[in-house]
Amino acid sequence: MQLEDTLGDAALILRRSLSPVSYDDSLLATTQEGEGGRLKLRRSSAARRTVLVVGSGWAAHALIKVIDTERHDVYVVSPRNCFCFTPMLPSSAVGTVEFRSLLEPVRVSNPEVVYVEANVLELDTQRKTALCRPAIALPSGELGPTFEIAYDVAVLAPGEQSATLGVPGVAEHSFYLKEVSDAVRLRKRVAECFELASLPGTSEEDMSTLLHFVVVGGGPTGVEFAGTLADYVRRDVARTYSRAIVGKVKVTLIQSAQTILSQFAKNLQGEALASLAGAGVEVRLGARVSRLDAGCVTLNTGETLHCGVIVWSAGNAARPLVRSISESLHAQRAFEADTARPGLKLAVDPWLRVVGAQDVLALGDASRMHGAPLPATAQVAGQQGAYAARLLNRRFDLGIGGLDQPPPWRAAAATDAPSSNGDGTVVAAGPFDFLSLGLLAYVGNDSALTQLDTGDVHVQLSGRFAFLLWRSVYLTKQVSLRNRVLILFDWMKTRVFGRDISQF
Amino acid sequence: MQLEDTLGDAALILRRSLSPVSYDDSLLATTQEGEGGRLKLRRSSAARRTVLVVGSGWAAHALIKVIDTERHDVYVVSPRNCFCFTPMLPSSAVGTVEFRSLLEPVRVSNPEVVYVEANVLELDTQRKTALCRPAIALPSGELGPTFEIAYDVAVLAPGEQSATLGVPGVAEHSFYLKEVSDAVRLRKRVAECFELASLPGTSEEDMSTLLHFVVVGGGPTGVEFAGTLADYVRRDVARTYSRAIVGKVKVTLIQSAQTILSQFAKNLQGEALASLAGAGVEVRLGARVSRLDAGCVTLNTGETLHCGVIVWSAGNAARPLVRSISESLHAQRAFEADTARPGLKLAVDPWLRVVGAQDVLALGDASRMHGAPLPATAQVAGQQGAYAARLLNRRFDLGIGGLDQPPPWRAAAATDAPSSNGDGTVVAAGPFDFLSLGLLAYVGNDSALTQLDTGDVHVQLSGRFAFLLWRSVYLTKQVSLRNRVLILFDWMKTRVFGRDISQF
Repeated sequence: MQLEDTLGDAALILRRSLSPVSYDDSLLATTQEGEGGRLKLRRSSAARRTVLVVGSGWAAHALIKVIDTERHDVYVVSPRNCFCFTPMLPSSAVGTVEFRSLLEPVRVSNPEVVYVEANVLELDTQRKTALCRPAIALPSGELGPTFEIAYDVAVLAPGEQSATLGVPGVAEHSFYLKEVSDAVRLRKRVAECFELASLPGTSEEDMSTLLHFVVVGGGPTGVEFAGTLADYVRRDVARTYSRAIVGKVKVTLIQSAQTILSQFAKNLQGEALASLAGAGVEVRLGARVSRLDAGCVTLNTGETLHCGVIVWSAGNAARPLVRSISESLHAQRAFEADTARPGLKLAVDPWLRVVGAQDVLALGDASRMHGAPLPATAQVAGQQGAYAARLLNRRFDLGIGGLDQPPPWRAAAATDAPSSNGDGTVVAAGPFDFLSLGLLAYVGNDSALTQLDTGDVHVQLSGRFAFLLWRSVYLTKQVSLRNRVLILFDWMKTRVFGRDISQF
Repeated sequence: MQLEDTLGDAALILRRSLSPVSYDDSLLATTQEGEGGRLKLRRSSAARRTVLVVGSGWAAHALIKVIDTERHDVYVVSPRNCFCFTPMLPSSAVGTVEFRSLLEPVRVSNPEVVYVEANVLELDTQRKTALCRPAIALPSGELGPTFEIAYDVAVLAPGEQSATLGVPGVAEHSFYLKEVSDAVRLRKRVAECFELASLPGTSEEDMSTLLHFVVVGGGPTGVEFAGTLADYVRRDVARTYSRAIVGKVKVTLIQSAQTILSQFAKNLQGEALASLAGAGVEVRLGARVSRLDAGCVTLNTGETLHCGVIVWSAGNAARPLVRSISESLHAQRAFEADTARPGLKLAVDPWLRVVGAQDVLALGDASRMHGAPLPATAQVAGQQGAYAARLLNRRFDLGIGGLDQPPPWRAAAATDAPSSNGDGTVVAAGPFDFLSLGLLAYVGNDSALTQLDTGDVHVQLSGRFAFLLWRSVYLTKQVSLRNRVLILFDWMKTRVFGRDISQF
C-alpha cells in the first residue's frame, strides 16, 4: 500500500510537471482511484470538494504537491507566497546560500491551486467559511476589504510564530530566524556591524561590543546559525576586514538547559559542543535571559552581555488563528491540560482531524497529536501534508475529529481487497504513521551530526563525514530541480568566491 | 603612452589580484614610475599622499581598481559599501538577473583601500578635511558621532540622486530606479501587484488598475525597464498566473520629449519604438506629468492614468554635498550660467580638477567639463576614474583647478622622452580624453540598439544581433570574474526556470 501510494503520487506529480494546465491525460490519477473514467473539465461539480489550505510551509507544500487538483478545488491562503526550505535559513543569514535558492512560489509548486496572499482571521467551522484579510497593501497603503472563502474541507498548516517567552525587549531588540524576511534583515545587520566597527575613531571597546554576536537558544536553528556565523568570520571576514576586526569577533550561544540540541543523543551533544568550541563559539549552558535592551543581554544572574546583534531562536508560540480556533471549540478544552501552555497547539486525532471540528485537519507545528505528540519538525510536517493529500485523493469523508468519533471512511470500490479494513461497503482510513528518517544538524567548522533510530537501525555520526551527508540529504530534499541547481551553485560560489558582503 | 598606461594598470591589477596583502613584489609598479627601488612597508610617509574618494559608483570603482595603494593611503567614503553595475538595474528589478550579481563590495574591489560607510557632509577645501557622518545606525538606533578625515587629494564621485523635477507626489508615490535598494523595492511591489489583482473578489476594473505599470522617463533606464517588464509578463506571468491576469497587464512609458533614447540616431529611436510596441509597451510621447498620487498619474492635459506601480526615471539632481561645495567656491559661480540648472554639477577643467579648489578632482555625473560637457554615462565615469588614478599614480601635483591655472605637473624623470610636454624639468599632464566605445540599450523582446561613432567608424545595429552584442558587452564589462559567472548563471537560470516570483 505504501509503495502504491508513492507510485501514485509520483505519477500525479510527473503528469503535472509534464502538462501543468491540461485536464485530459488524467488516466493515471483516475485509474489509481479505480474509477476508469475521465474527469470532466468542469471546475465545480458535486463530485469535487473545495479544499482550503492555510499556510505555505512544509505541511502545506507537501499537500499541494500531492493533492489531485482534478478532484479538488484547492485554495491556498498564506501571507507568504512561497515555500521556504527552513533548515537552511541559518546558512542564508550569513550568505552561504542565497535566499531565493530556498524558496519555491506556491504558484510554481502546483499551478493548479488558487493561491491567495492573505491572512485567515477566523475559521467558522459551523458555516465552513474562512474570513480572510489581504496580506498586501493597495497602492493607497490600505489593506483591501476582508472576504470569505467557503470550503468543504479545511487543512490548517499555518505553523507557529516566534515567541518572546515573556522576556522584555525581545520583540524590539532581537532578530528572529523563522521567516526568510528575518534572515534578510539579520544578514544585513551582521554586515553593518562589521562596517560600524571599522569606522574611524571607533574605540577598542566599542569594536568588541559591535562584533559580539549573541544567539539565544540552543536548538538546531541557534546552533546552526552560531556555527555558520563562526565559519563566515574565519573564512570570509579574515579576507576582507583588517586583522584588528577579525580578532575582536565573538559569538556566544546562550542556552537555558544544561545541554544543546536536546533531541540528539548525549554523545552527539558532546560532539556538538566540542565542534562549536573549535569553531570559536562560546556556549553558555544553564543561562537564562531575563531581559533584552538595545545591544545588551541581561541574564537572570544579573550579568550583562554587550553586543552588536542578538538573535532570538528560543521558542515559538501559537498564531492568533490557532488560538482563536482552539478557543472556539469546546472539545479542545479537554486537551489543554495535556500541554504545558494551553491553547498552544490544536489537538488532533490519529487521522490529523482537529478534535471537535467537522472536516478540519491540522498539520505540522500548529497541531499536536493527543497521546503521541510528534516533534515539531519539517519532517513530521511534510509527511503529514502528504498523508492529508492522500486521504483527500482517496475520497475519504473526514467527519468530526476526536478519539471517540469514527475514523474517516469512504464507500468501498471494486478494487479494494476483501481483506481491507471495512465491512464490505465502507473502508476506514488508516491513521497517520510517522516514519522517522533521522536527525541532522550542522554545528560549524564543516562538521555536522547525524542520528538515525528506526527499528533495529541505530546510526550516530558526527564530523566531516556527517557534514557531507548533511549536504547530500539537504540537496536531495530540495523541493525542485531548480532549488537543487541553485543550492549547488551557491555552495560552489561560496567555496570559490566567498560570501558576499554587499549591503542593500 | 596609452598602451603603456594600459599595461601598467594591468600589471598593477594583476599583482593585486595575485597577492592582495603583500607589499614585497612591487617592482612592476615602481619600475613603471622609473624609481627602481622598492617601496617600504610604512603606511605613512612624506612620499605618500592621502587620497579621499567620495562615492562607490563607476568613477570611484575604476579609480580604486587602478590606483597604486603603495603610494597612496586611500579612503573610500560612501553610504553604499559596494559598486553596482547600474546598466543592469532594470533587469534586476524584474528578476532577469539577481541583485548580488551586479555588486562588488569596495573591500573586495581593492582590499588595500580603507572603506568607510559614511556620508560626507562637508568638504573643507581650505583645511583639506572632510566632515563625515556614519551611514549606519548603532544598536541604539542612533547614528554615531561625526568625524573628520584629512586628505592630500580629494576625488569627488558621489554621482547624483533621483530628482522629482518639482512634480508633486513623486517622492511619496513612485519607485526610483537609481540604487540597488530601489530595484529591490520595485521587484517586490511588482510581484505584490500581481497577487493583489489575483485576490478573490477583485473587480475587473481594479485588476486592470493594479496591473497597469507606468514608467515615467524615456531614457535608457525607463526604456530598459519597460522592455524587460514586458518580457517578464509575456514569458513568466503567463506561466504562473491565470489568463484573466495576463490579459489585463499593461505597460505605459511616458516621455515628455517627442522621442525616446535621445542620445541615439533617429532611425534607431524608431526601431526602439517599434520594438517596444512589439513587446506590448504603450509609449506616450510628448506627455508631461503634472502630479502623482497613490496609484494615479496626472498629465498636464488633465488626463489621469490609474495604475498599480509608478516608476520614476525622469531625471537626476545634485547631491547635497555637491551643492554645498559648489556654493562654497566662488570660482564655480562663473560657470553657473553655463548649465540649465545652477549648482547642479561641479564645473571641472580638462584635467577634471574642480574649478577654484586646491587638489580636488570631480568625476562622473557630479561633474561637468566646461566647454565640452560629456554625457552622464557609466562609460565616461569609468574612464575618468582610471584617468584620475593614473594622474595620481604618476605623482602629478594637481594644484588649483581652473582654465586660467597651470595644468597638473610633476618633476621630469630620467625616463621621460626629451620631446615630452615640459620644459625639461617639469612635465605637464595631458587632459582627460574621452574615448567613446558606443551606445547600447535594451528595448525588450530580445532586441537591443547599438550605435558606435568613432572617427570613421559608424555602426548602427538593432534587433536580435544587437541584443547578443548587448549581452556580450555587458558580460565582458563586468568588473570581476565572480560577477561574470553570476550574471551568466542568472541568464541561464532565467531561460530554464523563468524569473522567480517569491516575495520577501
